[in-house]
Amino acid sequence: MNIYDYMITKGQNAKKASRELAYISTEVKNKALIAMSEALISNKALILSENEKDLVNGRNNGMSKALLDRLALNVKRIEDMAEGLKSIASLSDPIGEVTKMWRNADNLQIGQVRVPLGVIGIIYEARPNVTVDSAALCIKSGNAVILKGGKEALNSNITIADIITRAAVSSGLPEGSIQLIETADREATNTMMKLNEYIDVLIPRGGSGLIQSVVKNSTVPVIQTGVGNCHVYVDEYADFDMAEKIVINAKTQRPAVCNAMETLLVHKNAAEIFLPKVSDALKTYGVEIRGCSETEKYVSNISKATEEDWKTEYGDLIIAVKIVASIDEAMDHIYKYGTKHSEAIITNNYKNSQRFLQEVDAAAVYVNASTRFTDGGQFGFGGEIGISTQKLHARGPMGLEQLTSIKYIIYGEGQCRK
Amino acid sequence: MNIYDYMITKGQNAKKASRELAYISTEVKNKALIAMSEALISNKALILSENEKDLVNGRNNGMSKALLDRLALNVKRIEDMAEGLKSIASLSDPIGEVTKMWRNADNLQIGQVRVPLGVIGIIYEARPNVTVDSAALCIKSGNAVILKGGKEALNSNITIADIITRAAVSSGLPEGSIQLIETADREATNTMMKLNEYIDVLIPRGGSGLIQSVVKNSTVPVIQTGVGNCHVYVDEYADFDMAEKIVINAKTQRPAVCNAMETLLVHKNAAEIFLPKVSDALKTYGVEIRGCSETEKYVSNISKATEEDWKTEYGDLIIAVKIVASIDEAMDHIYKYGTKHSEAIITNNYKNSQRFLQEVDAAAVYVNASTRFTDGGQFGFGGEIGISTQKLHARGPMGLEQLTSIKYIIYGEGQCRK
Repeated sequence: MNIYDYMITKGQNAKKASRELAYISTEVKNKALIAMSEALISNKALILSENEKDLVNGRNNGMSKALLDRLALNVKRIEDMAEGLKSIASLSDPIGEVTKMWRNADNLQIGQVRVPLGVIGIIYEARPNVTVDSAALCIKSGNAVILKGGKEALNSNITIADIITRAAVSSGLPEGSIQLIETADREATNTMMKLNEYIDVLIPRGGSGLIQSVVKNSTVPVIQTGVGNCHVYVDEYADFDMAEKIVINAKTQRPAVCNAMETLLVHKNAAEIFLPKVSDALKTYGVEIRGCSETEKYVSNISKATEEDWKTEYGDLIIAVKIVASIDEAMDHIYKYGTKHSEAIITNNYKNSQRFLQEVDAAAVYVNASTRFTDGGQFGFGGEIGISTQKLHARGPMGLEQLTSIKYIIYGEGQCRK
Repeated sequence: MNIYDYMITKGQNAKKASRELAYISTEVKNKALIAMSEALISNKALILSENEKDLVNGRNNGMSKALLDRLALNVKRIEDMAEGLKSIASLSDPIGEVTKMWRNADNLQIGQVRVPLGVIGIIYEARPNVTVDSAALCIKSGNAVILKGGKEALNSNITIADIITRAAVSSGLPEGSIQLIETADREATNTMMKLNEYIDVLIPRGGSGLIQSVVKNSTVPVIQTGVGNCHVYVDEYADFDMAEKIVINAKTQRPAVCNAMETLLVHKNAAEIFLPKVSDALKTYGVEIRGCSETEKYVSNISKATEEDWKTEYGDLIIAVKIVASIDEAMDHIYKYGTKHSEAIITNNYKNSQRFLQEVDAAAVYVNASTRFTDGGQFGFGGEIGISTQKLHARGPMGLEQLTSIKYIIYGEGQCRK
């Protein structure tokens, strides 16, 4: 079978499964998730040996240490995946919930019911846990899923998908509910991005290169996730001890993720006290500082920030620092360079806090807290498939609810339109 | 200025306006809507004379009577547009509403707030009232709007847009809030569909040709509206008098619109009693009947329905009729040929009604009512910009709420991620 036909078959299988999955009972879905969890645990050895093949290939192909770390599984990581499945089983089922119901002028009873999207395609990189996690969130929300992982993790993914799919189907989920694209051929991804007839939405999970490529090449609707050029603005009215703690947390607690801070904006009246203090702390954490020319007056031994720095999501222990004349200049900077992900103001001034919350356009806008909280788990959604940085359909952390649509059900007694 | 630069300028103006529009007060928006309404009334004569130019061009170019009717304005229609503006002013403002607020495990107070989408592009045909109606819904929901109407209505649209834009800006809305593309050049539409940097979503309003062309050619996200191949299924347990009334209403009350019925499905046990009865009634209304071979046994002088008929949205006084062996066959037919718009079952059987509501995948699923109710006004939304037949972002009638997104606002006290 050529790649095109292979992909069409996957699409047809998924579409067929999705029709049944849309109204399968919560009990069956949860039973499947638990069975998937148990199957992972009882197949640990097999998963580890297949993962080892990927790791050997990776090392032979000169894969970076960071990538090898993302690819590598161990007993703990498999147990975490299994635990994740159980925790998704314990979440309440969003499907079938009637979120509103009313009577219209003609006495029709109109209800708005949550339904699945249908078929979700996930395109991701070399992290095998995404296979499990994505499948679980899609299944729980009544969607069929087509998974296309990175070629570096192909052996791991084939084994994992096989294990969880068999567990799911034997628990009563329809065949085709979970499918992995079992090829490293790039043509598979290209075809997947044009399968409008079978796939309702594509969610790329990974770096900005992957995401941009999917956005540009897909005719299937895409939900953009995860590009975060996040700012913390330290107002002149900030509590500087609090500001320092938040800056350190937002920059260093996990610098590679999308909700980490990239640029620090400091009010000019706060610069003299706050900048030397926070710079010392940042340096202790091994953070490289790149500052505007004003910043250089307060902090020694830093490099000069360029236009490029304001635009960059470092994903690393590097920070750009800019001194601004006002909250307006801070918000203008964020408007110009931000990616509408997560933005924070540190202030004790009421009016400034309210203006920042209202005027800054981002998925998550914070007063006096670290940007690192933008996350489905932290928000209390019980998990997430990504953080949407677009405004259509879903914005911010995407949990189960964000993987659903609605339909209207209307109970009549013979009403006709006048 | 060439078309490309012209469109970029429009995009930039809209983006700029949208930043301010996002948090402008309800009072100013309503004042603007009222001023727009009054300006239409006081400029009736001018609008009618510009509209006459379009009508003369239309007649000279052999425009069909139906199209000329959609293009034509008169005092009553202008008054209706003005009334529509007032009624949108009277709707409650969706922007700024906090739809949820909770505390997470770290005691962060997290609120979900409704915000505008940003810049909405509307591509439509020759109905000048769409200019007013779209502008009003976008403005009220805090969005800037770029309008691209059909070339047949260009004179009417230029005048109307000029009148309402001046009224809006003098009431305090930012320049660029409402902009019309004042050219008939097709390149303008092509450019508009690629303005990802400036337009957040495109909503095509018109026939399926227009909609499909926008869906296929746009890189800006599109909300698909209005293609409706709707079915009424008359179950064996139907009240046949009610069924007849609903069939007549769904087919004949306004056959050209998307929520009108196209195919009638009749349970085989109902055919002998119901079909001759409903056929006579349909013929009284001048409806042409095309039936399956089984239908031909019960109804004389009808033509044979082909595969093509099951797929067709006639938009006219034509109906396709099929006899089915069961509710399952009816639902399979709807699954195969439906456009997921509006579907109805007529039955007094509880189980069948519940199965149909749950298993049929469409924006609106009815028991014992006409499909003609799928409409923002009828649902009680106070207006609509279209009926979405997709599942992403919005489904069914799109009122003000469906023209919005959300953001999370987070009130902290120095919280950092552990």
